[in-house]
Order: sequence, then C-alpha cells, then structure tokens
Amino acid sequence: MPSREFFSCDWGTSHFRVRLVNSATLEVRDERVSEEGVSSIFRASSTDDRPALFAGVLGRHLHEVIAESGTGADRCVISGMASSTIGWVDLPYAVAPLPLHPSRLERTTFLLPVDGRDISIVLVSGIRTTDDVMRGEECELLGLLELCPELVQERCLVVLPGTHSKHIVMEGRILADFQTFMTGELFAHLRKMPTLSPMLEDEGDESDFLRGVRSARDVGLTAALFKIRARRVIGGARHGASAAFLSGLLIGDELLHTPDGLAVYLAGAGHLHSLYLRAGEALGLSVRALSPEILRQAVVCAHRMMVL
Amino acid sequence: MPSREFFSCDWGTSHFRVRLVNSATLEVRDERVSEEGVSSIFRASSTDDRPALFAGVLGRHLHEVIAESGTGADRCVISGMASSTIGWVDLPYAVAPLPLHPSRLERTTFLLPVDGRDISIVLVSGIRTTDDVMRGEECELLGLLELCPELVQERCLVVLPGTHSKHIVMEGRILADFQTFMTGELFAHLRKMPTLSPMLEDEGDESDFLRGVRSARDVGLTAALFKIRARRVIGGARHGASAAFLSGLLIGDELLHTPDGLAVYLAGAGHLHSLYLRAGEALGLSVRALSPEILRQAVVCAHRMMVL
Repeated sequence: MPSREFFSCDWGTSHFRVRLVNSATLEVRDERVSEEGVSSIFRASSTDDRPALFAGVLGRHLHEVIAESGTGADRCVISGMASSTIGWVDLPYAVAPLPLHPSRLERTTFLLPVDGRDISIVLVSGIRTTDDVMRGEECELLGLLELCPELVQERCLVVLPGTHSKHIVMEGRILADFQTFMTGELFAHLRKMPTLSPMLEDEGDESDFLRGVRSARDVGLTAALFKIRARRVIGGARHGASAAFLSGLLIGDELLHTPDGLAVYLAGAGHLHSLYLRAGEALGLSVRALSPEILRQAVVCAHRMMVL
Repeated sequence: MPSREFFSCDWGTSHFRVRLVNSATLEVRDERVSEEGVSSIFRASSTDDRPALFAGVLGRHLHEVIAESGTGADRCVISGMASSTIGWVDLPYAVAPLPLHPSRLERTTFLLPVDGRDISIVLVSGIRTTDDVMRGEECELLGLLELCPELVQERCLVVLPGTHSKHIVMEGRILADFQTFMTGELFAHLRKMPTLSPMLEDEGDESDFLRGVRSARDVGLTAALFKIRARRVIGGARHGASAAFLSGLLIGDELLHTPDGLAVYLAGAGHLHSLYLRAGEALGLSVRALSPEILRQAVVCAHRMMVL
C-alpha cells in the first residue's frame, strides 16, 4: 500500500524548500527551507558533477526528514528552476495556450535512492509563449484553479507578485497568455543607481508608497524617477523620496498594465500581498484578493495532482 | 563702442563649451570644448575654493581664445549647471508657467578680469515646476522660439532628447509645463544590470531598435526587459536582444508619453535626432523635426538676447 504522504519540493533560483505532505488532507507535517537555490548549485558545479550535486542536496534533506518523521513517503514532486538550463535536468517548456492540467505539463521521472529506499522523483517543467517563460508558477496556478473554483468561471487575470511578477490570462482552464514584469529585480537595481541611491536610503512609509503609485499613473516611470532627484533639489533633503516611493512607482507601473474589463485576482503572500492590494486600490482597479493561505496550499495541491 | 563679438558658454554636468560669436550674424568664430564639466570641478573643490576654480577654468579658455583671435569681446553669457548647487554660483530657479523672455530668467552678473580686461559675465539660471527642474534647456528653447516662429503659433510640445530628455509644453511664448525623462541615464544603468548585460553586448541595428520601440508600446518597459532574457532562453544566443533594442525600448517608452492632440516638435542633434525621429514614425506620431543646425544656433541666439 503506498504511503499516504509525499514530498513537495519548490526549488527556486535562490531558495530550496521541501515539505512532507499528507496526501489526503494536504497538511504539511514537516518543512525545510535553505539557501541552496539552483543558481548557487549551478555556480559551484560543472556539467559533469551537476546531477550528483543536485541529487546530494535533495537526498540529504529527504534523509533528515525521513529520519525525524519516520515517514514511509516514497514520492517527491519538484517544480521551479530545477528543470531549467541551470538546473538538475534541462527540460523543454510546455507551450501556451495550454489547458492547465497535470497531463499537459512537461516532466521527467526517475528514482533517487535514499536510505535504501527508491524515491520516485517527478521533476515538472515550466510553460512558455513565443517570448516569455515561467517555471514554478504553473504549479501555483494549477493548485489555485483547484482551490478557487471562481477562477474558471470567467476570463480573468491572475497576478502573482514577486521578483519576476507574472500576469496570467486564464480562459476557463486554459492558460491563454502571460507577461512577466521584472518589478522586484528592477527595484533592487534602480535603488543602486548612483544618482538616485543617496535619495532612496530612507525606507519611507505608506504615504510615500501611495505617492509612488500615483506618480506611475500620472507621469510614468521614467519621468517619475527624475522627479526623485528634482524634488530633492527643489525642496531640500526632507522632500526627497524613499525606497517606499520607488516600490510604489514600480508596482504601480506594473498594475497599470492590467487590461481593462478583465477580473483581476491577486495571489500573493506576505508583505507583497498587501502592497499590491493597496496599489490596486489607489489605481481604482477592482482587484480580488485570494487568501495568502490559499497560495501557500496551491503548490502542494498541484504537486499532489502530479503524483496521483 | 562695444565689440561686435561675445562669448557664449554652455557649462553642463560633464562638458564645458565656449564659443566666440559674432553678435550680428551669430557666426561662431572660435569654439572650445573640454571635459571640465561642473561635476568634475565640484568633486575637486571645497566650498571655499570653488568660485576660484570655476573662474580659473573659464578665464584660461577665454585667455586662449582672446590670444588666438585678437577679439575685443568683453561679455560672456553662461547657461547650464554652472548656476546649480554644484556650480559656480547657486542661483534660484525661475518658476513655470513663465513667459519665455530674457527678462524673466533668473541670472547674476559680475566681472571676471582676463588679460587686464574686465569680462562681464551673465550667469543664467534654470526653470522649475513644483516637481521638475531644467538648467540649460531654457536657453535652447528661448533661441528656438526666436529661430522657429511656428513654435509660437499653437500649443505644442517641444522634445529635447538627451541624458535627461525634456518634454516642454509651450502655449505661445509661455512655457506652461515640462517633464524630464531619465532616458539616457537609464539606458546606461540598465545596460549594466547583471542579469541583462550579457545579452546586451551586441550593439544591434535599426531593426533591433524598431523592435524595442514597438515592445515599449505593446508590452511596456518592465515586461519587455524580462523578454530580453526570455527570448535568449527560448531561442538561443542569436535570439537575444542588443543595446539597440534597449535604446528603442526606452526612447519608445518616453515618446509614448507625448499627449494626444498636441503638435510635437523634435529638437535634437546628431545620432539621437535620427533615433527619436524613427521611433516617432514607428509609433505613428506626427513629429515635426526641427533642423539639427537650428538647435546648434539656438543657444548662441538666446545668449545674444541676454547681452543685448
């Protein structure tokens, strides 16, 4: 009889995360997070030893979880950058438009021996259009469709905030199209811009953030960036900007690209979730917020669908 | 009898330029350009010795021009960053909306002894709104109004491309409003973005530039930046982007902010002039190009108005 538990692994560019999940209740019994993201392993490896390094990191974590929990789990689903050119196995993308169903995602399966037990690994690949790519978000979305039936009732836009925010157009269960916005990465890079960084040392507060959002709408990103400096010149140090202003500017600019007449669902967690909500309100967008809890459940829910 | 010649000086952040001009014909008899921009002098100076350093640089160039040309010129008009907080004398801005007339610009006058002759210096300050600033462009614009009578016939937008592009709304002779776009500075900074720079080493050609312009319109700046990377992942090295693509993206994004229904006049010189023209065409904007020659004449024309 197969174990009622399985491993759910989210292996991103900068973070590794594995959970031991009850497949009936989706309850997470154990969870481990580390900095062993795909890019750090890629940098430390050569083409020859890369598979062994990835197997070593996963095997060590599974070994520890098994030793502590005594679980009999023997299946592990992995999504994220582990299937990329810098990952464990380089898998092709599925191509959108695409019905979002476990059978339509690209994947590979193989066995990983851990403590004398063969763990069945399912490595899931991402989705591409002609000029955009995602890896990892396809499982978040697959789980969200399962947990939030309202998403398949109408053509809608699902917003997944992050370093590379995704705006995904869903038509029923069909992933029709998507756009990636470099919002988080741009925030980090623009903050270091030599002529702006001295004016962005102040973290700022909600009113600065909302002023940034409105500036994105009223004057646009490139002009608003210059005004950070101009306001300092005109008004003195106390009238400069702040990191919160820049954050509002970039999130506002991103949300201004949500198409008219499409229901917008926000699926974020933590601080970003509330920032996107406040920015959406300030822009007069009707953004429906999915519970951050649901987003956390979505990945393990999708991973269960991949091993059933 | 005053000399029929005067000195016209354009003292920017990174460059110094002085011309000996015939005040009747506006013919430039001599011209000197150096890297002694305001910021390099600011960095090399303290509050105490700053005025002497600025006087030294200008005095040396005027001495050389006088020695070589034998001119009797004793008036010198300076515009640009020399009147800023990092300049020779920190002058307040004139405030827009403002009738663009020499008498309405802020300036200071003083004498600079050169070769036993007192040169009368007119240092012209810039213009601000509540949240934007310009220094130097006000003289370009003043000269353009004099040289291009069509600019005062209707409400129009004058575009001055550059590191900090200016879009200036003119209502007859009134400078009504303006916006600065950090286009050139952003180009330099984004080109160095660690995750993008390897894909932007190729200089590219006109078709890349126009693809960038269209991407600004079709998907927006932040999403198009991500596609630079995505295209490389999907299509291999030959399908990456180029510096020309990034240039098109930023200039396209800037020009998309020109308001509807306003005649747009482009006043640029050199390579930027033709890039802005091609981007405007690709976006279907009706951009009227002023001759690059006229822009070069505009500053000396405005400077003559300041000493008459």
